Amino acid sequence: MKTVEEKATVARKAFLASAGLKTDDKNKALSAIANALNQKRREVTEANKRDVEEAMNAETGLKLSDAMLARLKLSDEKIDGMIESVEAVAGLPDPAGRTLEARELDKDLTLYKVSTPIGVVGFIFESRPDAVPQIASICLKSGNSVVMKGGSEALNTTKAIYNIVKEASAKAGIPSGWIQMIESREEVEEMLKLSEHIDLIIPRGSKKLVKYVQNNTKIPVLGHSDGVCHAYVDREANIEAAVKVCLDAKTQYPAVCNAIETLLVDERIAAKFLPKMAAEYSKAGVELRVDDKTHAILRGFKTKKATERDWSTEYNNLIISIKTVSGVQEAIEHINHYGSHHTDAIMTENKETARKFLKQVDSSSVMHNCSTRFADGYRYGLGAEVGISTNKFHARGPVGLEGMTTYKYILEGNGQAVAEYIGPNARKYTHRKTNKSW
Amino acid sequence: MKTVEEKATVARKAFLASAGLKTDDKNKALSAIANALNQKRREVTEANKRDVEEAMNAETGLKLSDAMLARLKLSDEKIDGMIESVEAVAGLPDPAGRTLEARELDKDLTLYKVSTPIGVVGFIFESRPDAVPQIASICLKSGNSVVMKGGSEALNTTKAIYNIVKEASAKAGIPSGWIQMIESREEVEEMLKLSEHIDLIIPRGSKKLVKYVQNNTKIPVLGHSDGVCHAYVDREANIEAAVKVCLDAKTQYPAVCNAIETLLVDERIAAKFLPKMAAEYSKAGVELRVDDKTHAILRGFKTKKATERDWSTEYNNLIISIKTVSGVQEAIEHINHYGSHHTDAIMTENKETARKFLKQVDSSSVMHNCSTRFADGYRYGLGAEVGISTNKFHARGPVGLEGMTTYKYILEGNGQAVAEYIGPNARKYTHRKTNKSW
Repeated sequence: MKTVEEKATVARKAFLASAGLKTDDKNKALSAIANALNQKRREVTEANKRDVEEAMNAETGLKLSDAMLARLKLSDEKIDGMIESVEAVAGLPDPAGRTLEARELDKDLTLYKVSTPIGVVGFIFESRPDAVPQIASICLKSGNSVVMKGGSEALNTTKAIYNIVKEASAKAGIPSGWIQMIESREEVEEMLKLSEHIDLIIPRGSKKLVKYVQNNTKIPVLGHSDGVCHAYVDREANIEAAVKVCLDAKTQYPAVCNAIETLLVDERIAAKFLPKMAAEYSKAGVELRVDDKTHAILRGFKTKKATERDWSTEYNNLIISIKTVSGVQEAIEHINHYGSHHTDAIMTENKETARKFLKQVDSSSVMHNCSTRFADGYRYGLGAEVGISTNKFHARGPVGLEGMTTYKYILEGNGQAVAEYIGPNARKYTHRKTNKSW
Repeated sequence: MKTVEEKATVARKAFLASAGLKTDDKNKALSAIANALNQKRREVTEANKRDVEEAMNAETGLKLSDAMLARLKLSDEKIDGMIESVEAVAGLPDPAGRTLEARELDKDLTLYKVSTPIGVVGFIFESRPDAVPQIASICLKSGNSVVMKGGSEALNTTKAIYNIVKEASAKAGIPSGWIQMIESREEVEEMLKLSEHIDLIIPRGSKKLVKYVQNNTKIPVLGHSDGVCHAYVDREANIEAAVKVCLDAKTQYPAVCNAIETLLVDERIAAKFLPKMAAEYSKAGVELRVDDKTHAILRGFKTKKATERDWSTEYNNLIISIKTVSGVQEAIEHINHYGSHHTDAIMTENKETARKFLKQVDSSSVMHNCSTRFADGYRYGLGAEVGISTNKFHARGPVGLEGMTTYKYILEGNGQAVAEYIGPNARKYTHRKTNKSW
């Protein structure tokens, strides 16, 4: 068996060889993968049956929760979904090879800034086995090689899908070796050390997984571990809109990272707004953890006292902390101090107040008069979503195919030397923007 | 005295407070700094005299080389240069607050991707004290706070300039605390551990400094340690242009990172090209370290045998290694294997061969028919240069003011909830590009 370093080295070679591929070559390979998944459904479902049986084995089984078992089980509909996700990626524009900027430095000396793939990406995911074809197709389409590690409870299924993808893409002419699989926790630990061989790690799964990866590698990590998101209701908010948006932001899907955990309310609107909001939250079964001022206003409602810890807690559940603040400045400071720089919203009809909030809140997405739940690659129109990043570097916020690229500068001349641009008779740089594409 | 963590915390507060500044506020502060430097020349030159005297003290002095002493000494002309560099940054466009993309998600629901400053930047530099105002003005203009550490031999000068910048910018209304200075090696070590407080480290100086920083921090580092650059002369090169460009790329300024260290020559043009090239290199005093094939062609010239180590050596001097290769494919593989992903050039009249090289060489800048020496922020038209990066993430290649920014997503609506876009009567996303600016 190959070591992870050997696998990564093979993946690097395939990445370099892939630089010659055309968009059409990649799309044909994606169609071939979709077809192969369709033809080999039985291989996949049989491997999946073995995983499910092993997980349910009364003596040695993994004792998965019902929800986990449901995620593990592959139905025919889920396989249809996998095939569709591969076809959808084939339909997206190629993120690599785009001319991002072009500048004429002089006559016949043109500089292009062109998007390129990154290299070898390590993908670690805990979730459903249907993630495999999506991750593979995102990497193939963007021109990256991938070393992937799935959840151990889905090993047979992951392997079956991996083999189908590998074989179909090789037949379609993609340099073989671009997709690699590792299986054990020890191999993950080895991979996290390979900063010379792996360019980027993308962990998808629990907060614990992401934190572990972030703390144990020098390789750049794309993702976020915390989602402590806020809504601030300003004194000049439209109350009806604020109630609707804050209800959506908390309850539409409370388990996800872009749901709000804390509601901040301007003291001058609190008496009017809070009782209406609390009524809606109570109807939806949301527990209210409040500061003293909010408690005084919500005397008619069942509330708990919020502790200092509540302000930085991601409940991922039907619980919300509420604080009455003196205005937008305190709200901004609270969010920058306690938040996770993920997604935060302001509700106000005052454009200047909104602008102040949107400028000064240091988060990857900031919303004005709409729900934090919109922070999502699909809703933003990015096509496939790789993840949501709270990094300040490379990709920030919801990350689509574009986040799987970097860029290079390409300078095309006709024999120019730097020496000609120096000294008494120096040629001058023109530095003119042009619309040329490389 | 404050700890580095306390200084970084103050810098973070100033950064957050600076988000409210307008471009005009920042430009006025830069003018105020330029004026203050002009008025307080004597403070600077007197501090500089103390540094020079201490360095030259026969007993306790630093025993600086003549070159280092020349860099340390500040003349009136150098102070003029410092003032001009600050004014030049004031004249550059504001890199923050630009709308990079805008997309209508639905009627009255518009997504903006807007450039923003990064946060707190740690700047470690070994070079001339005239770097201080340039670094400070780059950070101020881009809206970042900075914790800076200069070379210990220039401590008095750096401190004097730092105090002038700090005072003038505070008077001009920039939130005080945005610029911080640390002095000792121990403080640098402390700073490198502050990954919660410092967003980016920029080391400027020797390869040793950059490597040390890269190996001793979890904070993202912007820069490069190695510059093993190549020129490849293809069988279809214009020989005259190739000789001119390869001479420039090696000899115009051999001590810098974008000068070439290795010349690769296609075997079908080697017999014609190499004697002409070697004649020029010999005239310029360049030592030739060659492989066997090149040796056979250059029998009339003084050459040394290249060893395996030569192919990955950055000479930074008048030495070049030369290898005769079978063609563009071998050249690409050699460069990707031995190079440092910095800057590499191809000389050819064949557009397809050039395209293959430019696509497949995995470097931050790739050149066609021009010198690698063009890879530079000023020549690329980026305005001030922060450094050259061989990172794949964030900024790659020569880095200007734009490299001192990240971005955030801003979504403006009129009360939309995500729930309205889900289910049987769901509203549909339009996802239309627009030219609106935030």
